[in-house]
Amino acid sequence: MFYFIIDILGTIAFAISGVLVAMEKKLDLFGVFIIAFVTAVGGGTLRDILIGNTPVAWMREYTYVLIIFITVVLAILFVNQLKYLRRTLLLFDTIGIGLFTMVGIEKGLTAGVSPVMCIALGTITACFGGVIRDILCNEIPVIFRKEVYATACILGGLSYFILVLLPIYTTYAYIGAICIIILTRLLAVKFKISLPNIYRKENW
Amino acid sequence: MFYFIIDILGTIAFAISGVLVAMEKKLDLFGVFIIAFVTAVGGGTLRDILIGNTPVAWMREYTYVLIIFITVVLAILFVNQLKYLRRTLLLFDTIGIGLFTMVGIEKGLTAGVSPVMCIALGTITACFGGVIRDILCNEIPVIFRKEVYATACILGGLSYFILVLLPIYTTYAYIGAICIIILTRLLAVKFKISLPNIYRKENW
Amino acid sequence: MFYFIIDILGTIAFAISGVLVAMEKKLDLFGVFIIAFVTAVGGGTLRDILIGNTPVAWMREYTYVLIIFITVVLAILFVNQLKYLRRTLLLFDTIGIGLFTMVGIEKGLTAGVSPVMCIALGTITACFGGVIRDILCNEIPVIFRKEVYATACILGGLSYFILVLLPIYTTYAYIGAICIIILTRLLAVKFKISLPNIYRKENW
Repeated sequence: MFYFIIDILGTIAFAISGVLVAMEKKLDLFGVFIIAFVTAVGGGTLRDILIGNTPVAWMREYTYVLIIFITVVLAILFVNQLKYLRRTLLLFDTIGIGLFTMVGIEKGLTAGVSPVMCIALGTITACFGGVIRDILCNEIPVIFRKEVYATACILGGLSYFILVLLPIYTTYAYIGAICIIILTRLLAVKFKISLPNIYRKENW
Repeated sequence: MFYFIIDILGTIAFAISGVLVAMEKKLDLFGVFIIAFVTAVGGGTLRDILIGNTPVAWMREYTYVLIIFITVVLAILFVNQLKYLRRTLLLFDTIGIGLFTMVGIEKGLTAGVSPVMCIALGTITACFGGVIRDILCNEIPVIFRKEVYATACILGGLSYFILVLLPIYTTYAYIGAICIIILTRLLAVKFKISLPNIYRKENW
Repeated sequence: MFYFIIDILGTIAFAISGVLVAMEKKLDLFGVFIIAFVTAVGGGTLRDILIGNTPVAWMREYTYVLIIFITVVLAILFVNQLKYLRRTLLLFDTIGIGLFTMVGIEKGLTAGVSPVMCIALGTITACFGGVIRDILCNEIPVIFRKEVYATACILGGLSYFILVLLPIYTTYAYIGAICIIILTRLLAVKFKISLPNIYRKENW
C-alpha cells in the first residue's frame, strides 16, 4: 500500500512535468495528454520492450491511464497555481525516480539480467520518460545537458547491489537505495552540484 | 478483398504524406524512402512492439514494402502534380486512419488486452506513423498541435465497443466505426473544428 | 577471433562518432556516454526489438558496455587529437557498418525472415544507431540527407544473397559482401558520389 501510494505520487509528478513542457510548446489538448502520458509511462515502456516483457505494463493496468488522465485535467485547470508548487513537484518527482529506479531493477532481476544491466534498466525506467517527452517536444533531452538525475539513479542502483550483500533484509536494501537516490538528487539541487565539466573553455 | 484495397489505399496515402514532408526537408532519395516507409508502417510497428507481436507485421509481408516503394518512385516523379491532389490525398488518408484504427483494435483484441487499451492501440496504429515521421524530420508532431485526427480515432474506437454491444453483426459495428472516424475527420476539416483551446490569451 | 576484433573496432568507431556529435552539442558527461552508447548499440537494439529477440543483445553481454565506457573516457580526454584521426575513424566506421550489416542479416536469417527483410535488418543494424544519435541530438539524421551509407549496406546485403547462390562457401559470400560494403562506401567518399538528386532547381 505504501509502495502503491508513492508510485502514484511519482506518476502524478511525472505527468505534471509532461503537462508543463507540453503547454510551454503550446500543444493542443490531445498533445498535452500524450506528452503527460509518455513522460509518466515511457521509461517503463522502453524497459519492458528491451527485456521483452510484453504487453507492456500500462496495457495491463488501468490505474495509470486513469490517474494520468485526471492529473492532466487538473493540471491544465490549475496551471497557474502549479508554478508556485515547483518545490513540491521536485519532491514528488525525486521520490518518483527513486521508486521507479527500484521497480526497474526488480523487473530486471525477474527477467534474469545481470546487476549492471538491472541498474541500466532502473535508470531507463526512471529517466527515459523525460527523454521521450523532450524528443517529442523537439528539444535535446534535459537530462543529457544538466542536473544530477540519471547519476542519482545509477548511484542508488549500485548501492542496492552493495546493500543486498550485507546481512540485512532485502526490503531494507530496497528502501536504503531509494533514500540514497532521493538524497543525492535533493543535495545536488540544493548545492547546485553538477557532473564534472568536460569542456575546456579555450576549445569549445 | 474490399478491406485489402482500402488498406492499400491508406498505405499509399500515408506513404505520399511521408514523401511530401521529406521533400520539404530536402532529404535525399534514401531519406525520402525511409520517411515514406516509416509514415506508412510506423504506427503498426509500434503497436506490434507494445503487444509483443514480433516479428512486426511488415517483416512478414512483402506487399507493403513493394507498394511503398512504387508509391515513392511515382510520388517523386509527379511531385508537382501531387500538389493539386490535396483533396484526394486527404480522402485516402482519412480512409486510411479509419481502417488502420480498426486493424489496431482487432490486433489488440487478439492479444487479449482490454477495450480501453484496444482503442489506444488503434489510435497508435493510425497516428504514430505520422508522429515518427515528424520526429525524424525534426518537427513537433503535427497531431499534437492541431487537427482533429487522433480524436477521430478515439471516437471511432469508442463507437465500435458501443456498437458491438448492440444485437448487430460485428462486421456492421466494424464498418460503422470506420464511417464514424471518416465522418468526424472530414467534418472537422470542412468546418475547421478543433479541440477546445486550453490556453488563456493573457497567460501564454 | 577475427570477427570479434572487427566487431570491437566497429563499436569503438561508432561510440567515438557519438562522442563527437554529443560534444558538439555540449552535452554533459552522462549525455555524452548515453549518446555514444546509443550510437554503438542502437541499430542492433532496434533490430532485436523488431524481430522480438529479447532481452536485446547488449543486455546479455558485458563486453560492449565496458568497451564503450572506456572509449568514451579516452575520447573525451583526447578529443583534440581525435580531430586529426578523421581518416582512421572513417575506416573503422566503414568496417563497422560492413560487419554490422552482416550481423543483422545473420540474425534475420536465424529469426526466419525473408531475404529482403534480412537486408532491411542488416541496414537497420548498421545505420540506425546513427539515426537515434541524431534524433537525440535534435538533428535530422545525417544519413537521410547525404552520404552513400545505407545504400552501401543495401548493396552489400543484395550481394550476399546473390553470392550464396554460387557454389562457394558461405563464409566467402559473407566476407565478399562485407568487402563490397566497405568498397562502395570508401569509393563514394573518395569520389564524392551521392544518390541521384531528386530536386529540380526551379521547383525547390
